[in-house]
Amino acid sequence: MISVFAVEGLPEIRTGDDLGAIIANAYPLLSGDVVVIAHKTVSKAEGRIVALADVEPSDRAHALCGPDTDARQIEVILGETTRVVRSRGGLVIAETRHGFVCASAGVDRSNADPGTVILLPVDSDASARAIRETVAREADVQVAVIITDSFGRPFRRGTTDVAIGVAGLDPLRDLRGSLDRSGRALRSTQIALADEIAAAADLTRTGKADGLPVVIVRGVPFDGDGSASALVMPADRDLFR
Amino acid sequence: MISVFAVEGLPEIRTGDDLGAIIANAYPLLSGDVVVIAHKTVSKAEGRIVALADVEPSDRAHALCGPDTDARQIEVILGETTRVVRSRGGLVIAETRHGFVCASAGVDRSNADPGTVILLPVDSDASARAIRETVAREADVQVAVIITDSFGRPFRRGTTDVAIGVAGLDPLRDLRGSLDRSGRALRSTQIALADEIAAAADLTRTGKADGLPVVIVRGVPFDGDGSASALVMPADRDLFR
Repeated sequence: MISVFAVEGLPEIRTGDDLGAIIANAYPLLSGDVVVIAHKTVSKAEGRIVALADVEPSDRAHALCGPDTDARQIEVILGETTRVVRSRGGLVIAETRHGFVCASAGVDRSNADPGTVILLPVDSDASARAIRETVAREADVQVAVIITDSFGRPFRRGTTDVAIGVAGLDPLRDLRGSLDRSGRALRSTQIALADEIAAAADLTRTGKADGLPVVIVRGVPFDGDGSASALVMPADRDLFR
Repeated sequence: MISVFAVEGLPEIRTGDDLGAIIANAYPLLSGDVVVIAHKTVSKAEGRIVALADVEPSDRAHALCGPDTDARQIEVILGETTRVVRSRGGLVIAETRHGFVCASAGVDRSNADPGTVILLPVDSDASARAIRETVAREADVQVAVIITDSFGRPFRRGTTDVAIGVAGLDPLRDLRGSLDRSGRALRSTQIALADEIAAAADLTRTGKADGLPVVIVRGVPFDGDGSASALVMPADRDLFR
């Protein structure tokens, strides 16, 4: 039995808050829990917020801009981008410094204060590790931590939450070498465990307006350690670059 | 609180079995449950199995074949394919008749009897609807049904389970027009609810060898109705075709 539930009663997070300590004191966590955190809360704690009034859009930002987009926001996106993968009408699909391919390099206005945008954490794996260590210290439990964002996908409509930062579990469950029910070796199966946990956690949110950024997923067996960078497809194996 | 648990004690499914009746009688379902079924079990019940000994590979199958692949299996894949999206070394990324883009058009040898391959259901939305109707008749409960497969994704390593057949829920949760916590209208957010439920269900499987194909996801609010075809990105909106 797996249980998935949001942590209620968290305060609004502000820059400089110790998110790990706040989480550790908000709910009686158990060792083996996976603590799933929407990245915007982490980004706010880390001050990854930009006021658009301070941004001067470049020629490139103007060129990528669409009729309904703010060139200053495109400029912020380009600052977070190592490669523009696709663009159309103000929508920029970008590769981030972390190696993730996503809309707007993760830069988003929703749930941001007016006139500001929220960026992804600089190093979301490091953010996850720091929160995990704080929780261990404050609550004396060994949890895994997953930081999430909502990504669109090629070929399929709708977003799903995925892992952009991981600590305390191996984000890929490797079935290679195990046998199926017919005794046949499974040759190439790796399950993106951390992404499936991220998706499960998002099910507790009936809408973004509900604002419950921290979700506990309890009862999923996991082991090892790793980082969300392990979920990035290497260029030489990616048929869609 | 969301609960996710596998249904234990199901018999091995054979061609012609009434899967809806078997599920309805295997576990005390509640109205509002989502019944998540790995497609191979549905495909077996529907006889979607091909013996490779009966297959004569075409020239095209030989051309797409890699060193470790069976040209007869490629031939079966091509029979399920409307468009080869990418191919390399025997790996074929195909668009299926349903519109899904996935490896091998969903044709798979794992958990198949030796010398056979398992295909996707011909109409996986119709399969889901039939199972839902049988469950309603047999157990007098209104559940949603999701049929799943494990898909790889561009840009990210590992598979996640996604919905390839849906009945009794709207697979997209539409947040467009709702307000974020700052009072800003969310303009473009649709969540792939059915895919997130599929991913959550997969968390109950510690490995494919465990063979627990039917999972209950309890406590997810849903409404409406729809089909997995709603999850297929229309060609004119797809930046990655």
